[in-house]
Amino acid sequence: MFKVYGDRFSGNCYKVKLLLSLLGCDFEWVAVDILKGGSRTPGFLAMNPNGKVPVLEIEPGTWVGESNAILCYLADGTPYLPDDRLARARAFEWLFFEQYSHEPFIATSRYWIRYLGKAEEYRAQLDAKRPGGYAALGVMERALAERDWLVAGAGRCTIADIALYAYTHVAHEGGFDLAGFPAIRAWLDRVAALPGYAPMG
Amino acid sequence: MFKVYGDRFSGNCYKVKLLLSLLGCDFEWVAVDILKGGSRTPGFLAMNPNGKVPVLEIEPGTWVGESNAILCYLADGTPYLPDDRLARARAFEWLFFEQYSHEPFIATSRYWIRYLGKAEEYRAQLDAKRPGGYAALGVMERALAERDWLVAGAGRCTIADIALYAYTHVAHEGGFDLAGFPAIRAWLDRVAALPGYAPMG
Repeated sequence: MFKVYGDRFSGNCYKVKLLLSLLGCDFEWVAVDILKGGSRTPGFLAMNPNGKVPVLEIEPGTWVGESNAILCYLADGTPYLPDDRLARARAFEWLFFEQYSHEPFIATSRYWIRYLGKAEEYRAQLDAKRPGGYAALGVMERALAERDWLVAGAGRCTIADIALYAYTHVAHEGGFDLAGFPAIRAWLDRVAALPGYAPMG
Repeated sequence: MFKVYGDRFSGNCYKVKLLLSLLGCDFEWVAVDILKGGSRTPGFLAMNPNGKVPVLEIEPGTWVGESNAILCYLADGTPYLPDDRLARARAFEWLFFEQYSHEPFIATSRYWIRYLGKAEEYRAQLDAKRPGGYAALGVMERALAERDWLVAGAGRCTIADIALYAYTHVAHEGGFDLAGFPAIRAWLDRVAALPGYAPMG
């Protein structure tokens, strides 16, 4: 049975929980307290030398890190990773977009506010993160105004949607207002209505 | 024939050139001047709504963005993306590591110094980027001390090596000293000795 080492309120960790739930896979969740150094112990670094949650244990002694790499591994051979070469490339585009153009703005803002509880102390940094975060939401909004799911040609939910759902559905906790993004809001509802959906937490 | 829209001294763009060269694929290079807004024109945004180089044109009207997604697309079905599911997951781990834990430190520092020529103006930001950049190099060094190529189990060069080579081989231009990283330096030499290797530029 899969083990997931993670933090229940981390979007990166939630991605793994959500895909496993949608796939109907049993898994064991092992809580790691990142604020108390839980991802920097020798035992954790043996699983992931980069010292980050989540980590997926496939079997004792075999671990995969990087949330989106875990999604690729779990979705391999399932409809959540398209078979068609171009559609698969589109899924990868969104996964890298998520880690480079979305997460560093939206998730980082949420981390300062929700995890550290230091919205005032980080006010200047939060302000600096807003344009990038709203730009990422704009890219998503324009895509989702044209189709129900992020990957053009897939016609269904893929790991691109799961990866981007994780931090977008809690973007308000990072100070981002989705009022001006109706296509994103309709898509969030579509994800939450999927059979097997599991909430964060 | 593939067209690559890119900047010759961008590591993200160089990745695509290097893989195409190693694969022996012909391609046309279309220079985009990112400092003059070349990646923000309506024509460019039609190819990549996120407004970033590189973009791969597969055929007229069909484009893929995100350097590492392009690598995945081009390597699909070749030995540069392993067939084995776990080895493939390891390649993805390194690709996401590159975009989240390496590029934002090492490539960003190089951008300030080499592209903008503002090392003094960005001194505080450069100092702030050093621990993260050296941490990423440390993760690579420990992996490469154990094996010749980044993906455990692949036993050869994969797109993980190509993605990480791009900015690591010019890390000194971002102010990073590789003197303390002998395994990385030996690996850089291995990549540069591959048949079909093409230099940046």
